[in-house]
Amino acid sequence: MRATTIHGTRDIRFGEVADPRIEAPHQAIVRVVAGCICGSDLWPYRGENEIREGATIGHECVGVIEEVGDAVGSFRPGDFVVVPFDHCDNTCVHCLNGMHAACENLGFTQSGQGEYALVQQAEGSLVATPGTPDERMLPALLALSDVMPTGWHAAVSAGVKPGGTAVVVGDGAVGLCGVLAAAHLGAEQVIAMSRHAPRQEIAKAFGATEIVTERGKEGAARVMDLTGGVGADAVLECVGTDEAMKTALRATRPGGRVGYVGVPHGVELPVGAMFARNVGLAGGMAPVRAYLPELLAMVLAGTIDPGPVFDLTLPLAEVAEGYRAMDERRAVKVLLRP
Amino acid sequence: MRATTIHGTRDIRFGEVADPRIEAPHQAIVRVVAGCICGSDLWPYRGENEIREGATIGHECVGVIEEVGDAVGSFRPGDFVVVPFDHCDNTCVHCLNGMHAACENLGFTQSGQGEYALVQQAEGSLVATPGTPDERMLPALLALSDVMPTGWHAAVSAGVKPGGTAVVVGDGAVGLCGVLAAAHLGAEQVIAMSRHAPRQEIAKAFGATEIVTERGKEGAARVMDLTGGVGADAVLECVGTDEAMKTALRATRPGGRVGYVGVPHGVELPVGAMFARNVGLAGGMAPVRAYLPELLAMVLAGTIDPGPVFDLTLPLAEVAEGYRAMDERRAVKVLLRP
Repeated sequence: MRATTIHGTRDIRFGEVADPRIEAPHQAIVRVVAGCICGSDLWPYRGENEIREGATIGHECVGVIEEVGDAVGSFRPGDFVVVPFDHCDNTCVHCLNGMHAACENLGFTQSGQGEYALVQQAEGSLVATPGTPDERMLPALLALSDVMPTGWHAAVSAGVKPGGTAVVVGDGAVGLCGVLAAAHLGAEQVIAMSRHAPRQEIAKAFGATEIVTERGKEGAARVMDLTGGVGADAVLECVGTDEAMKTALRATRPGGRVGYVGVPHGVELPVGAMFARNVGLAGGMAPVRAYLPELLAMVLAGTIDPGPVFDLTLPLAEVAEGYRAMDERRAVKVLLRP
Repeated sequence: MRATTIHGTRDIRFGEVADPRIEAPHQAIVRVVAGCICGSDLWPYRGENEIREGATIGHECVGVIEEVGDAVGSFRPGDFVVVPFDHCDNTCVHCLNGMHAACENLGFTQSGQGEYALVQQAEGSLVATPGTPDERMLPALLALSDVMPTGWHAAVSAGVKPGGTAVVVGDGAVGLCGVLAAAHLGAEQVIAMSRHAPRQEIAKAFGATEIVTERGKEGAARVMDLTGGVGADAVLECVGTDEAMKTALRATRPGGRVGYVGVPHGVELPVGAMFARNVGLAGGMAPVRAYLPELLAMVLAGTIDPGPVFDLTLPLAEVAEGYRAMDERRAVKVLLRP
């Protein structure tokens, strides 16, 4: 099959690789109908994470079941499925606790930016749509494989509540989905921190009531102004840098909480300030499967539409241009069609 | 009046000081019926916090209203009151949010280890008992001025829920009150980490179902054993050292939370491990007034009795011996009678 591979810093290629094969009973192969590039793919792209030269890349996709292992009973070839980027058995104690991201059989999608993707725990992870969805639904469904549940996890971890105030630090696809999550969970004031006009527009469409363009201490001070000097009940940290975390902690009211989903890069937590202000912190990798049934139902009902985070669609063969567009911030998120 | 003063490392004296006077309309003077020594008093006692030589010390007491400022309408001389160590107006936005520890008019009890204590925000902070309580109730009521609400705050911050599992790191008076809180909030398994037999006995009486005597990584491993390899839903960190925090974080299950109330001394938070395991953290100085009405009702009804944390009672004049007893861990907590 043809798939995307990474060979070094800013060296993304598209070409022939070995077809994925079922080698364990819980696996499934999904023919990719739509895949995409994740903000986290930019870490190895920029040389900030180690890579294995020539490895396939890409962990987000939706598509059609091609083949399933012997232990997979709920899906058959032809089913259209959303593929969570993190796979789980949905039966272990951590899954039963709702923390599928710590599943005892945790796995990850392979070759999501290819013609066929391999799923490790198909039975516990995949969620099928009723019938084959309309083409127009593909962006929203694809967002359910990672960014929408991740933004949702930030909001849940931050404790967003109806009538409360929320701030979202980060205007990438996850941050924008965090805005959508906070608004949908009932926050009355949703402040999006963004300096990019096109992203501000998406944030507003997703439910942001105010935009803060300042960053760092100035950004946190602006949040204080907008919240009557109090700070926000819930702050979603959707970047992963030390500056973003510090901004998030400063923008939170005493007794409030930061929900963080950006993989920490160089973050140092100021425990003294957190203690002094009773500001909590929770989050991590999203338990996608925990949220997927509810989020899928909302997407199918038209209650939420995270599709607009995709502002560029390319043929899969042009994936390298997709990476460049995201790296240079010309695109929020790139959808790829095989 | 006579009161306790601190003059240097391990230099506690009892003698004449100026009488407290009402100098602001929200103040009150309370004749101390019972005061006590706090674990946090040991930080300056041991020279680990800066002191002002000759300053009065002590922030926990119960007693009888002697005099009130012009703005205090709900209390009159003769009322028996519990005095929260942290004072609040109970009307500002932070108090209305339930985070009284961040009150815009925050204050602290002065000369709680004296014959008379000064309260900064009497109207918003004090809670009166119905009539004058029986002598036998004094230890339990006195515990409501700090350690019981602080242990409660650890349990609330850790998210203790009915049917869940809880671990308490620290067997000081606050940790023991944390055991009582976790048990009362419905945790089915309450694991107390303690190496001292008399404290283990109090922990068991307070509702601990298991005792772990190991510390650090071994202690966390023992908690894993006792929770089927999963970790605890909620862990109360009631010490404030780096080792205690690391133990607490390791003992928490993925998706669980640490509630911390020990003032951090040298704590470094391992953000990577916290993110990788989705382990959250919340806590800080307890908003005593937020919990006090409910806790007082439970004490008066006999539902909880935190009184046994006091295992030594001394005349106030012997306060220096009380400090020595706690410093040398001969006593969990010392009650002082003027």
